[in-house]
Amino acid sequence: MSKVKLAVIYYSSTGTNYQLAKWAEEGAKENGAEVKVLKVPETAPQSAIDSNPAWKANIEETKNVPEVTLDDLEWADAIIFSVPTRFGNMPGQVKNFLDTTGGLWFNGKLTNKVVSAMTSAQNPHGGQEVTTLALYTTMYHWGAIVVAPGYTDPVLYSAGGNPYGTSVSVNQEGKMVEDVQGAVKHQAKRTVTVAEWVKKGNK
Amino acid sequence: MSKVKLAVIYYSSTGTNYQLAKWAEEGAKENGAEVKVLKVPETAPQSAIDSNPAWKANIEETKNVPEVTLDDLEWADAIIFSVPTRFGNMPGQVKNFLDTTGGLWFNGKLTNKVVSAMTSAQNPHGGQEVTTLALYTTMYHWGAIVVAPGYTDPVLYSAGGNPYGTSVSVNQEGKMVEDVQGAVKHQAKRTVTVAEWVKKGNK
Amino acid sequence: MSKVKLAVIYYSSTGTNYQLAKWAEEGAKENGAEVKVLKVPETAPQSAIDSNPAWKANIEETKNVPEVTLDDLEWADAIIFSVPTRFGNMPGQVKNFLDTTGGLWFNGKLTNKVVSAMTSAQNPHGGQEVTTLALYTTMYHWGAIVVAPGYTDPVLYSAGGNPYGTSVSVNQEGKMVEDVQGAVKHQAKRTVTVAEWVKKGNK
Amino acid sequence: MSKVKLAVIYYSSTGTNYQLAKWAEEGAKENGAEVKVLKVPETAPQSAIDSNPAWKANIEETKNVPEVTLDDLEWADAIIFSVPTRFGNMPGQVKNFLDTTGGLWFNGKLTNKVVSAMTSAQNPHGGQEVTTLALYTTMYHWGAIVVAPGYTDPVLYSAGGNPYGTSVSVNQEGKMVEDVQGAVKHQAKRTVTVAEWVKKGNK
Repeated sequence: MSKVKLAVIYYSSTGTNYQLAKWAEEGAKENGAEVKVLKVPETAPQSAIDSNPAWKANIEETKNVPEVTLDDLEWADAIIFSVPTRFGNMPGQVKNFLDTTGGLWFNGKLTNKVVSAMTSAQNPHGGQEVTTLALYTTMYHWGAIVVAPGYTDPVLYSAGGNPYGTSVSVNQEGKMVEDVQGAVKHQAKRTVTVAEWVKKGNK
Repeated sequence: MSKVKLAVIYYSSTGTNYQLAKWAEEGAKENGAEVKVLKVPETAPQSAIDSNPAWKANIEETKNVPEVTLDDLEWADAIIFSVPTRFGNMPGQVKNFLDTTGGLWFNGKLTNKVVSAMTSAQNPHGGQEVTTLALYTTMYHWGAIVVAPGYTDPVLYSAGGNPYGTSVSVNQEGKMVEDVQGAVKHQAKRTVTVAEWVKKGNK
Repeated sequence: MSKVKLAVIYYSSTGTNYQLAKWAEEGAKENGAEVKVLKVPETAPQSAIDSNPAWKANIEETKNVPEVTLDDLEWADAIIFSVPTRFGNMPGQVKNFLDTTGGLWFNGKLTNKVVSAMTSAQNPHGGQEVTTLALYTTMYHWGAIVVAPGYTDPVLYSAGGNPYGTSVSVNQEGKMVEDVQGAVKHQAKRTVTVAEWVKKGNK
Repeated sequence: MSKVKLAVIYYSSTGTNYQLAKWAEEGAKENGAEVKVLKVPETAPQSAIDSNPAWKANIEETKNVPEVTLDDLEWADAIIFSVPTRFGNMPGQVKNFLDTTGGLWFNGKLTNKVVSAMTSAQNPHGGQEVTTLALYTTMYHWGAIVVAPGYTDPVLYSAGGNPYGTSVSVNQEGKMVEDVQGAVKHQAKRTVTVAEWVKKGNK
């Protein structure tokens, strides 16, 4: 059987979720997956970006990361989303992208994708749980199979014990507060493992 | 005391939520409120709009409705949102707008707004409940006061009995399935009534 | 490989969810599963039951249905829950049972169960969506794999198009409003299919 | 006008939410409210309680705290719930109690109660957000007015910045990790303030 194809789709204004996505890539590759790290297209006005040096720098730093396309969704056996919280929900940029998937959805091309999600926020309880669950709600519309980490490995506890998906708090200086690298890698491996079962069974 | 100021903020691609917004305006005015009906700025590409005649026609029909601004949020004592469901969540357009409220939020300008929400979807259980609740989740971040209809009037039962906010299903021909006009007007009146209590108390 | 073992766990006061459970059993057996239909233990006081003839009659009618035990959860490869809505969440009886699973959870015995859920309510938008999603939230804690129906079959549209799980409205006479038998059977088959993939892969 | 009547309704197995309830009482009294601290009736089997010394001790320590009754709900202008998370939702004990409010609900006796909620969990992201939101979902059915803390005071940030309601993590030794006393008192005062506006307006 061919390798599990994993799309790690992230949106990141100042770099946190890009880092989470890179760690997910590492974990998934260790588990034998073929991985694409893909960024959600930026739809904010240039003036907003220019007003925030960290945002501008991150866009520059990730300019070579390909933007996610509908073809990537069709290509993927599994998808891991990594997105920040904005007022207890995903950013508009991410919803804009998800809203373009109506054609794929209508043609049943999103069924049985194995999906999982990660988030970040500035406050420890700033919407990490509900943002992850909002992504899963949309995934149910797709007919996806949702694989959250639960408490399937001890490494998850030290990362904050978020059973819906790894989440991290980012302090005023833009640094991650919890050490979540291990949790991200575990979540990615688990996603790939379940995707492999589904891919084998569903051929 | 001055009248309660109500902003009815809607997003509508093919007209349903514009109609709900107009009914809300009627109900609120009957209860003595000063009302602005305001549309969320369209952020979809022109090509998407052009591919859907009903969408294009609605944009033409509502071209004189003012777009909502941050000043409108500051002006309002109460806000009623009316938005369609897209994959179990609000449309990207709406989230894009909400994401621009960080400055107002940071300065405490959104605290104690009295809010309520309405939705539409194509299927009877196509995300009406969760879309409304997703809006309320964001409202909690604002420090708003959330006033859902519950079952506070018999008219709500005939409209589908959605206690989180009036919701309507739209069939393949674009027609509303349930008769929700009475429910919308009740929800608008209730929102204005509570906003009046808050305005009087909070002066 | 041995057959997929499916536990259909329901709570029913007046019979609706017992009927949904029986249809799920039919669908799952047609897909080759070994099925147990199991009721959640009643924890309401006898006086409450006695005050409602339909509740009392249903308890009498289902007295030979075995009560679900923790051993059943361990036995199952897949679980379908069928529960009514009570104020936008599962009934206390169901939560009482789920709260007893801490020992199994702690020992990792609930990981990778393939789960799906169905609901009923008296109003068309009486909490069907959020009750299903509340069950899935608990399932994420277990480390389960959540398989919602999405829009994976046309039969789901005529049943109300609830992508999170089949749901039905029950009128004042206790009759189901929508025809959901086909949707229930499809959801059961889909659950068994995915569970078979997981069972094969995870051996 | 008579004082705002506040019911602080808690469920606590080992004492955390009893402590939160006591702090809420303090804050509310400082804001001039008449307060009843009330416990949700225990419905777990005695054997479960006996197997956990901390649970048994807390039951003994709080034996003189009155159990909440339906009359208390009718009496209250405002209600603050304080409950632990169990698998991402409220405990069965709490749902059992809420399920008994159908008669009050049917007679419109729960309309316009001003409500707010607090939670605890063992992991920092162990369901604090969704448990609070699940309580609010039920409150919408009641026709209640939901007043979450948002970010209405700087003290909330040091308590974890949960905008839906104060939440606390409890470590293996049963000690609270965050310092939430100030946040609880602020939330209680805010709830009383809004309840006073509603009471004045709604007379």
